[in-house]
Amino acid sequence: MNIKNNNNRSATIIVHSGDFDKLMSAFIIGNGFLSMGIPVSLFFTFWGLKALTKRGFKKAPLSKMNLLGLGKAMIRLKMRRHNVASLEKLAQSFKSLGGEIIACTMTMELMGIKEKDLRADLVKSYGTVGKYCYITKDADITLFI
Amino acid sequence: MNIKNNNNRSATIIVHSGDFDKLMSAFIIGNGFLSMGIPVSLFFTFWGLKALTKRGFKKAPLSKMNLLGLGKAMIRLKMRRHNVASLEKLAQSFKSLGGEIIACTMTMELMGIKEKDLRADLVKSYGTVGKYCYITKDADITLFI
Amino acid sequence: MNIKNNNNRSATIIVHSGDFDKLMSAFIIGNGFLSMGIPVSLFFTFWGLKALTKRGFKKAPLSKMNLLGLGKAMIRLKMRRHNVASLEKLAQSFKSLGGEIIACTMTMELMGIKEKDLRADLVKSYGTVGKYCYITKDADITLFI
Repeated sequence: MNIKNNNNRSATIIVHSGDFDKLMSAFIIGNGFLSMGIPVSLFFTFWGLKALTKRGFKKAPLSKMNLLGLGKAMIRLKMRRHNVASLEKLAQSFKSLGGEIIACTMTMELMGIKEKDLRADLVKSYGTVGKYCYITKDADITLFI
Repeated sequence: MNIKNNNNRSATIIVHSGDFDKLMSAFIIGNGFLSMGIPVSLFFTFWGLKALTKRGFKKAPLSKMNLLGLGKAMIRLKMRRHNVASLEKLAQSFKSLGGEIIACTMTMELMGIKEKDLRADLVKSYGTVGKYCYITKDADITLFI
Repeated sequence: MNIKNNNNRSATIIVHSGDFDKLMSAFIIGNGFLSMGIPVSLFFTFWGLKALTKRGFKKAPLSKMNLLGLGKAMIRLKMRRHNVASLEKLAQSFKSLGGEIIACTMTMELMGIKEKDLRADLVKSYGTVGKYCYITKDADITLFI
């Protein structure tokens, strides 16, 4: 676990939500810190973990679908037009920048998700809340998304 | 207020959401830190505070009820089968491990919740945002759920 | 950027949600820390940024509109009766206490929001996630709302 860097700063983010826009936020923030040399661990639980199953990104809903007249297709279109990376690319960047993705094993049991259901290219390790607390104990930047 | 431990680490969590799964997360995370000797204060506001009224846990909805084919009854069933503690037990553990539950007095006024409506076995103290800020001022781990 | 105070404590809050009650929480918490001399930066993204457009506060929905029998009109009524400041007043206080409001430029591109659409009386600066990470790097209190 490379949670300490030269500044002794690190970030851990619980990704509880499986909403498309919140997943985007999680990876964008994660990539931002990684780019500054700050180690980041994303701990995926509940609906967030569901998004790490195969085709999970594609099925992720917007958190406010119809309220603001801005659907998912529209966001994807604008992302392409404005050269904003897709959720898939954001996740790949996160991995290649050295970010750690942890799958919550309690959620796996609750939701009947098996290791083979999860994307092996993204998930690095598995753990209970104890693992989250252990790495967060020394973290400075802590978010719940 | 026993907010400082030997490591000088502490955690404060604002519980704004009253969703069943987010309440579970709040208590699971809280219990995790308490188990490591890190003091935890949960500050309940808005829908979160509503969940601390009598029978509030039973009425708490899932944050994504129908989207993923996993209803509350199903989660409860799986929790029993996989030996995951119920929300009630998680809250009791939190108390017995020494966790502090604070009720937001502004929310009580806004929502017309009286002290007698809240569960006296869980709520330890009452306070405004000033109290939250005071204990969070020196906290290292800060979450908003 | 006046992110450091005499205690070397500071807070940064990502406001991703545009829900009326979560916007209230963001400003109430922000004002609480500012009142204690702790600098606060609010970084508005996605639906949160939408709320900073003209008349955005008025259009903000409750996060749980109908579930708990407590509508927005009811909350406003109770806020007046109990002398709780309106969202507008909370935001004005935040500004006058020296709080910083940053608009996420990526969200502006994604959602087609122009500078002229945003409330110039509230927004102080514009930035990408890089700006958020830069000021959060040294922050102690970090929340995602």
